[in-house]
Amino acid sequence: MLIRLFINHKLMKTIETCFSPALFEPENNKGKIIVIIDILRATSSICTAFANGAEAIIPVAETEEAKSYKDKGYLVAAERNGIKLDFADFGNSPFNFTREMVGGNTIVYSTTNGTGLIDLALTANPATIVVGSFLNISSLIRWIDRQEQNITLLCAGWKKRFNLEDTVFVGTVAERLMKTGRYSTNCDSTHAAMDLWSIAKNDLRGYIEKVAHRSRLREQQLDDCIDFCLQHDFTSCVPILQNGCFIGFNS
Amino acid sequence: MLIRLFINHKLMKTIETCFSPALFEPENNKGKIIVIIDILRATSSICTAFANGAEAIIPVAETEEAKSYKDKGYLVAAERNGIKLDFADFGNSPFNFTREMVGGNTIVYSTTNGTGLIDLALTANPATIVVGSFLNISSLIRWIDRQEQNITLLCAGWKKRFNLEDTVFVGTVAERLMKTGRYSTNCDSTHAAMDLWSIAKNDLRGYIEKVAHRSRLREQQLDDCIDFCLQHDFTSCVPILQNGCFIGFNS
Repeated sequence: MLIRLFINHKLMKTIETCFSPALFEPENNKGKIIVIIDILRATSSICTAFANGAEAIIPVAETEEAKSYKDKGYLVAAERNGIKLDFADFGNSPFNFTREMVGGNTIVYSTTNGTGLIDLALTANPATIVVGSFLNISSLIRWIDRQEQNITLLCAGWKKRFNLEDTVFVGTVAERLMKTGRYSTNCDSTHAAMDLWSIAKNDLRGYIEKVAHRSRLREQQLDDCIDFCLQHDFTSCVPILQNGCFIGFNS
Repeated sequence: MLIRLFINHKLMKTIETCFSPALFEPENNKGKIIVIIDILRATSSICTAFANGAEAIIPVAETEEAKSYKDKGYLVAAERNGIKLDFADFGNSPFNFTREMVGGNTIVYSTTNGTGLIDLALTANPATIVVGSFLNISSLIRWIDRQEQNITLLCAGWKKRFNLEDTVFVGTVAERLMKTGRYSTNCDSTHAAMDLWSIAKNDLRGYIEKVAHRSRLREQQLDDCIDFCLQHDFTSCVPILQNGCFIGFNS
């Protein structure tokens, strides 16, 4: 019995959480699956783009790189601090990524928090980098569970600060993975996220009201997409990074 | 009425929280009160030392500096990763700071997380740096409330990671300050900490069981001080940094 418990424990995969890029430790993430999370709004927008038929998304961290893609004729989504850059075709609202705009297209995408995070995750030499949001949560969890790998849930935060919307998303993902009995965690951040989700889940929209980022979006009248971003399972697509480019896989 | 609300809001002091030294932004902390928090075990030990009659505590970040003080004849408390350094008089357990050992003495103190944090806080040019723990919580809150300044609750974390024991302490401090009506917060970390405290408070000891740092302490058989460190109001002393040295003030 004890031996069996021991074996089970050894087979269990671990969940770790990183609340901000500033807390990311590349040396502890080699060979893991890294889930990139930026609920308001980058990872929600990426999921929306694939739901609406985007072919591929090329994430770029620097504005200059985004601009050079634009010069080559690519469709470019680029914002800084919530504002679309003047050379870009559109900004960071998921409402921009309509079927008419993105269907069949490859999009170059650069945001304040989201895309720099991917470059950071790559420094760890992870097994895979995938995109998570409420919009693809069930598919994401199914996909993760099939991989049988240790995972890190990496939040974009807001300008490297902790934020609640990414954290409660981590909480629900972790809770659902733990319920399979195939995952364990000894990570305080993951425990905290699950506890915060237990408070938030009964009224997620109300909970997000107190989020600092919401007031920032509201000041810029960019908060119209929050209800949309909190919607579960809008798509069954899991965007996976392959050769520097996100491709959408149904799961 | 509206004007009055506006004036009240302007007079309100803000609470911000930093879950890890890696998230600290010196440029946003100028002129604030910074409360240093390392519940297991540095700030609990510092409070214990003053409760037991220590004259002053000189925090030093580097081992070499601690050693040079030892050579000059100071009493030195120094540990790394929970283990007392060989040249030191004692390590980091609050149980070491007995009246017999520390009464009337100045102690030089260097720990894995706690004392480097003070150097970091100083880079912000804050109004004051004070030490917080459950052991001095009510006095700390009284003292803070008298200062009428914006405050930052700065957690040591564990090797720069988020940790739960520091976070739930932040939660109770923030909750009690908010209840005065003289403080407000627009900081996601502070909101999260208060929510986690709302879960932890009914069984704080049980909650701390799941803390990763507890299992680390247990492996080294250093977890005997946890009940002590979770004790409220063991002392009425607030250690305040003055000219590089903590002095205890009754509050």
